[in-house]
Amino acid sequence: MFEFKITSKNNRARTGIFSTPHGELTTPVFAPVGTQATVKTLTPEHLKDINASLVLSNTYHLYLRPGDELVRDMGGLHNFMQWHRPMLTDSGGFQVFSLAQTRKVDEDGVTFKSHIDGSTHRFTPEKSIVIQENLGADIIMAFDECADPNDHAYIKKAMERTHRWAERSLKAKTRLDQALFGIVQGGVDPTLRAESATFIASLDTPGIAIGGLSVGETKQEMHDMLDVVTPLLPENKPRYLMGVGTPEDLINGVLRGVDIFDCVLPTRLARHHSAFVPEGRLNLMNASFSRDERPIDPTCDCYACRTFTRAYVRHLIVAKELLAGTLISIHNLRALIRLMESIRSYIADGSFETRAPELLSQWSNNAKRIKHEG
Amino acid sequence: MFEFKITSKNNRARTGIFSTPHGELTTPVFAPVGTQATVKTLTPEHLKDINASLVLSNTYHLYLRPGDELVRDMGGLHNFMQWHRPMLTDSGGFQVFSLAQTRKVDEDGVTFKSHIDGSTHRFTPEKSIVIQENLGADIIMAFDECADPNDHAYIKKAMERTHRWAERSLKAKTRLDQALFGIVQGGVDPTLRAESATFIASLDTPGIAIGGLSVGETKQEMHDMLDVVTPLLPENKPRYLMGVGTPEDLINGVLRGVDIFDCVLPTRLARHHSAFVPEGRLNLMNASFSRDERPIDPTCDCYACRTFTRAYVRHLIVAKELLAGTLISIHNLRALIRLMESIRSYIADGSFETRAPELLSQWSNNAKRIKHEG
Repeated sequence: MFEFKITSKNNRARTGIFSTPHGELTTPVFAPVGTQATVKTLTPEHLKDINASLVLSNTYHLYLRPGDELVRDMGGLHNFMQWHRPMLTDSGGFQVFSLAQTRKVDEDGVTFKSHIDGSTHRFTPEKSIVIQENLGADIIMAFDECADPNDHAYIKKAMERTHRWAERSLKAKTRLDQALFGIVQGGVDPTLRAESATFIASLDTPGIAIGGLSVGETKQEMHDMLDVVTPLLPENKPRYLMGVGTPEDLINGVLRGVDIFDCVLPTRLARHHSAFVPEGRLNLMNASFSRDERPIDPTCDCYACRTFTRAYVRHLIVAKELLAGTLISIHNLRALIRLMESIRSYIADGSFETRAPELLSQWSNNAKRIKHEG
Repeated sequence: MFEFKITSKNNRARTGIFSTPHGELTTPVFAPVGTQATVKTLTPEHLKDINASLVLSNTYHLYLRPGDELVRDMGGLHNFMQWHRPMLTDSGGFQVFSLAQTRKVDEDGVTFKSHIDGSTHRFTPEKSIVIQENLGADIIMAFDECADPNDHAYIKKAMERTHRWAERSLKAKTRLDQALFGIVQGGVDPTLRAESATFIASLDTPGIAIGGLSVGETKQEMHDMLDVVTPLLPENKPRYLMGVGTPEDLINGVLRGVDIFDCVLPTRLARHHSAFVPEGRLNLMNASFSRDERPIDPTCDCYACRTFTRAYVRHLIVAKELLAGTLISIHNLRALIRLMESIRSYIADGSFETRAPELLSQWSNNAKRIKHEG
């Protein structure tokens, strides 16, 4: 279990197969986010239809509601939400630092107040592992401390603590059917990132996560950090870039040797009427689409694009019908999953590095073109 | 086209087949309501999966948003919302009287202000037909005046005007691929109802609607009016009881010779966490369901019941996840459609009248039993 087999390489980019208790994960892969044990507005059937493989869910949210013990007693997350392909849970670390009302960190853990009802709770590395074992995802994360990226002294302290917490997480783990990943931190400091990558790589884990990026740094800083980190990681472990990202970020991440991504962006944008198309982001509420008989993206094979016009989707948005969010979510997720499918085939046939500049300009450069068209 | 063939009878209850340009409609039938060209939170695939046949959409809403001419130019309602089975539109009469901000009725029509933006509009029988021809449903309605059920003098005046408007609607109609139904009015006055039924039955229409019920009268009054009206209607035309209703109403309507029903109740209740089960209505937000591993209704064959536990649906409700509304909508609509399937088979085998009391007590009497259970 948890063997990672690299099936093709194209410089630092690689395709692989990661074996999990719920099936083989073909990488590079983009994971839709099901924060509260549901990818917002979609059924598991919709997710299968867009060829989703890995789904992420959030430890912090599920611990608070409905409770990890309830999920365990209902047969675990896979049964609870009826997703029988691979799942991943984060450690709760990022949410404690970004969502909880107040928090107090000490060497042992974090005491925080729930963003839902203000009640007081405490996470430690050991507690995070107990919760994640109750939830039962295939891939779980070590508990980490997420520091303010602009506070250098804190970044270093938080990174060192994250290393100690990774060791404690690993020690606390009891289930053999879950892969625990340590998390590389270190802000945007190359020296700290290198130190963190080296330490986390030294732990006996089947995979490695890269945290603390996509939190406000520039694209260049993200690329620089990946350029420091991935060369220091072992080849034979999958690398998971947490909370990333946009289509450009996925292309840039794969170019730098990343295998797993997740992001709420596709579904969050969908609820704000914004659709990924190769030319940029389409705001489907725009009046210019009111009589547009084309699908959201004429090149897309998803249910929404196979079935409905932009005119209909725009009507649903204007009429405040929730089906709009469902349809655009289906499309946006499929767009990223389809992008990953293309990337995998390009890596396999050796053309990914050559095609990357064109792919990047296609996906990052055309917001203007769309505006002119409207 | 629009032939109605009665296939079996059980006293006044009957099964039949109504031929439309989008296929044969097997009656008695319950139509989900897609007010704004979408059955709220569901895709057409969900509707096919629950074996929906007829879908209703609202003329008043679609005229205001996105506009009937836009729908016509996008290929009509069937293409716009991608529902390729039979559709029905109402005339806008009921909404003008129940939703519009202000209205002024004269012999020619009604001037009203939009509930969306306060803009002024005017419906006449001719205008309602133009709009419905632009929308392009298989079954359309004559424009009618819906009076306050407690104002006897107005009820009579409104009924007489509804008769004149029915004649004008019939005369205005140009499309041969749409079946126009006249609407019987008359409040809860048996004499007026009889007069209206006789008049509407005398018109050359392929079907007859019964309006102005389910607007605040008692169940007994509704049954009394049906007992007056349906015996005066020709056997060979389908009868459509507008805006009705609950499972008990469907059983009682079929017993009195009704063939077509529609109601927002199943989808509206779903958005308020309430599920139809044979024993009554289950409020799935109730804490007693938090660890309930049964499906919403263990006897149901819908996707929600085949797939998820009450515990999961309750979690979605508590976590304010929209998927809850989708799943309960699927279940509630399937519950009524399945009830109609049973009723049709009972009529066909001659057992409906015998089984009706048991069916009624099953569906109407057990809210208490559920409370005890919780």
